[in-house]
Amino acid sequence: MDVTPDLIAFAEELAAVARVETLERWASSVAADDKGKGLYDPVTDADREAERAMRDLITSRYPDHGITGEEWPDQAASGPYSWSLDPVDGTRSFICQLPNWVTLAGLLHSEQAVLGLIDAPCLNELYIGHGSEAWLITGRSRTRVRTSDCTDIADARLSTTDPFLFNDGSEEAFEALRRSVRVTRYGHDGYAYARLAAGSLDLVIEAGLKPHDYNALIPVIRGAGGVIGDWGGGEDFTGGKIIAAATRELYEEAVRAFEAFA
Amino acid sequence: MDVTPDLIAFAEELAAVARVETLERWASSVAADDKGKGLYDPVTDADREAERAMRDLITSRYPDHGITGEEWPDQAASGPYSWSLDPVDGTRSFICQLPNWVTLAGLLHSEQAVLGLIDAPCLNELYIGHGSEAWLITGRSRTRVRTSDCTDIADARLSTTDPFLFNDGSEEAFEALRRSVRVTRYGHDGYAYARLAAGSLDLVIEAGLKPHDYNALIPVIRGAGGVIGDWGGGEDFTGGKIIAAATRELYEEAVRAFEAFA
Repeated sequence: MDVTPDLIAFAEELAAVARVETLERWASSVAADDKGKGLYDPVTDADREAERAMRDLITSRYPDHGITGEEWPDQAASGPYSWSLDPVDGTRSFICQLPNWVTLAGLLHSEQAVLGLIDAPCLNELYIGHGSEAWLITGRSRTRVRTSDCTDIADARLSTTDPFLFNDGSEEAFEALRRSVRVTRYGHDGYAYARLAAGSLDLVIEAGLKPHDYNALIPVIRGAGGVIGDWGGGEDFTGGKIIAAATRELYEEAVRAFEAFA
Repeated sequence: MDVTPDLIAFAEELAAVARVETLERWASSVAADDKGKGLYDPVTDADREAERAMRDLITSRYPDHGITGEEWPDQAASGPYSWSLDPVDGTRSFICQLPNWVTLAGLLHSEQAVLGLIDAPCLNELYIGHGSEAWLITGRSRTRVRTSDCTDIADARLSTTDPFLFNDGSEEAFEALRRSVRVTRYGHDGYAYARLAAGSLDLVIEAGLKPHDYNALIPVIRGAGGVIGDWGGGEDFTGGKIIAAATRELYEEAVRAFEAFA
């Protein structure tokens, strides 16, 4: 078993140490801004310190685990496990003191994402997924989450972080999709995948994702019963073009629209 | 004095009775969705019941006040005061169980908006503005809020609810603006104006707003020291084309870009 109960419990600890570094800086970011530009950048600071806190905790508990992140050099693994960290996903929301940024951590075993956490500190919502399970943890409450049963584009609640990232020829496919779905939301970064796992969004399509963005998302979406893959219908995430869907049918409908641009 | 302390305290009561009707329905909306389409629509229900609760409270406390809203017929005033209500502003976020929808209530005196409330129940943030004051109330904590001192488009944090609502010739003006600013956020409806008042967004540009959308926003933005007007640089809100800005300079910069489409 690649994901032991210890590792699942450890994911909660990781989210907690990151929150200590991010939440206060987010809450005080407007005041910091007023004090003068360039002197202090709360989001950069939160990013760096939260990643450091998570790295310290991993290194002390699991010295054989590898670590990759955005802010510090890669740490090589001496075993099959490696962590992929993104302390602040949704930097633009953080800068605007909006609540929908998240902390992401994915655990890979032999390069397969096996455990993922999406933590939304401002909303006190921690999502953890592994195997065929995904959970929403809010304080002491734990709720099993699962994706919706939406199979039809016309019923789908769609999310994408930035509509202007479809600029490689896929603009028309996105435009057609946006006009077909029930409702479209923007700007939620990793939080959109959490809400997809919890059944309140049905479809997320994005381009430009990096490994530290998608590694955490995969086990959460799959644990909740959803489907996550690339625009071409496969599982090559390295191109950063990702579709996550509540159901296999919905994923395949989206692939039919976007595979020409995969 | 048009806005008495009694009326300010009453605005808090209004927000509270609306929350009772909205918050629980929002939290259970995914479960409701699963039970079958068409049988129960949580957002419509929340909208209708929250407006009814606010109307009942107004009628019992201030029987001479007029009331207009979305869900029920207008109630004529027998004095100078009238309320403008929008129980769920941000219906699309509500449907997707995202936290950034708000309840809006504006009090007009002789047809001028003199008191406004923007309540974000999921975030436990109530904003109230009147005269030259605006406050953020979170439980027992009250904080005076004010807009940022941003005067330059290049530094501005911009928000608009839907980039595809610029479809009357103003697409290019929006495109140029989006490329000029520091960061752009979408999908926040009335909550964007609350964050503008609190200094974490600097500029909001929208089209298609109705009186029950904008009446509540005006006293909050002005109370926080910001500027809110129409695309032409005046104060005719009836066209629904609104610019709100942290400073007069920023407002005027935005007007220069959009006045051709006012």
